[in-house]
Amino acid sequence: MRRFVVVGHRAITSSKFNLNDLCGATGRLDVLLRCINSAFFLSHDIRRDVELYLILQGEPEPPKTIRLVGDELKYLNPDERSTAALIRNALIKKIGKDEEMSTPGIYISKNGLEEVIKGLAKNSTLVYLREDGGIFEPTEKEQDYTFILSDDKDMDEKEEALLKVYEPEIVSLGSISYHSDHCIVIVNNLMDRFSNNSR
Amino acid sequence: MRRFVVVGHRAITSSKFNLNDLCGATGRLDVLLRCINSAFFLSHDIRRDVELYLILQGEPEPPKTIRLVGDELKYLNPDERSTAALIRNALIKKIGKDEEMSTPGIYISKNGLEEVIKGLAKNSTLVYLREDGGIFEPTEKEQDYTFILSDDKDMDEKEEALLKVYEPEIVSLGSISYHSDHCIVIVNNLMDRFSNNSR
Repeated sequence: MRRFVVVGHRAITSSKFNLNDLCGATGRLDVLLRCINSAFFLSHDIRRDVELYLILQGEPEPPKTIRLVGDELKYLNPDERSTAALIRNALIKKIGKDEEMSTPGIYISKNGLEEVIKGLAKNSTLVYLREDGGIFEPTEKEQDYTFILSDDKDMDEKEEALLKVYEPEIVSLGSISYHSDHCIVIVNNLMDRFSNNSR
Repeated sequence: MRRFVVVGHRAITSSKFNLNDLCGATGRLDVLLRCINSAFFLSHDIRRDVELYLILQGEPEPPKTIRLVGDELKYLNPDERSTAALIRNALIKKIGKDEEMSTPGIYISKNGLEEVIKGLAKNSTLVYLREDGGIFEPTEKEQDYTFILSDDKDMDEKEEALLKVYEPEIVSLGSISYHSDHCIVIVNNLMDRFSNNSR
């Protein structure tokens, strides 16, 4: 399994946003929407072996985590607006202690970064993408990897400290700083090539 | 200079489309909009050394070419909807024989694939991205490359024949078939790494 965790530092945790102003009034939810496209879309197919966690930390009810499961996803189209509508459906859900499904393959919970990372660290190699990291090179065939990224804001001190506990590998994708969704495309390609070469 | 040429086989050549239905009624103009994001956006910057040609071949007035110049671009945001509004502004322009500017860095003309490739072939190494091509590896430092891609439809026989005249290098990005916008992200990263390593 290939997993991505993206922290949306100001991403809205209410369904009350306008689909016509995704860039303006959603705490940059648009960044996370593009990450969904990057994580899952292939030409005429969806990546079944990918799981994506979006950690929404904006007002009014932070945190919330939206988990997308490639193997179960339905109704996902590549454009931002229709993806936003799916995420809005998830945010409409009243959630208690447990994770709830909104549409097939899309789950929402009150978990935050700490719970998500703690859960994933047990069975997955954590890789934290940070601008000053070493160049990423996959090393083990069919490894269960979790890639952790930030949105347009860097991780804050508290998040850095939280991640440090789990001793993730800290890597970058070169000397240039890319948008989060572009990073996911590049990682997917590097992993595809690696899996193919080591088969 | 790094250049991308993307053929939008059914992409609308009129400004009469709805910004709320970019995926549905525009001949998949949404694919080209995402290519704009992939070609130009860096974290907190725009790639100044990139030029992108979108070849629109849909009704009602095919072909039209929209040329975006990184070094001159203004008002470009990463979301699809605002990018669509910029492209719509270009399509509103009445164009004659000559290319016209609509907003800074965005030009529109009645050129089609043939004129565009003919113009670029003079001073640029043509690289055609096709699923069955060999793996792409940049080979010359600071080379002036033009990467040619199709949208969600493959090039047709006439387009293949046209490209063949210019003997482009035919390459792929691995054994998996990606969306056009993802291909551009991957090529940009490969070229960034190559330029950096060979400096």
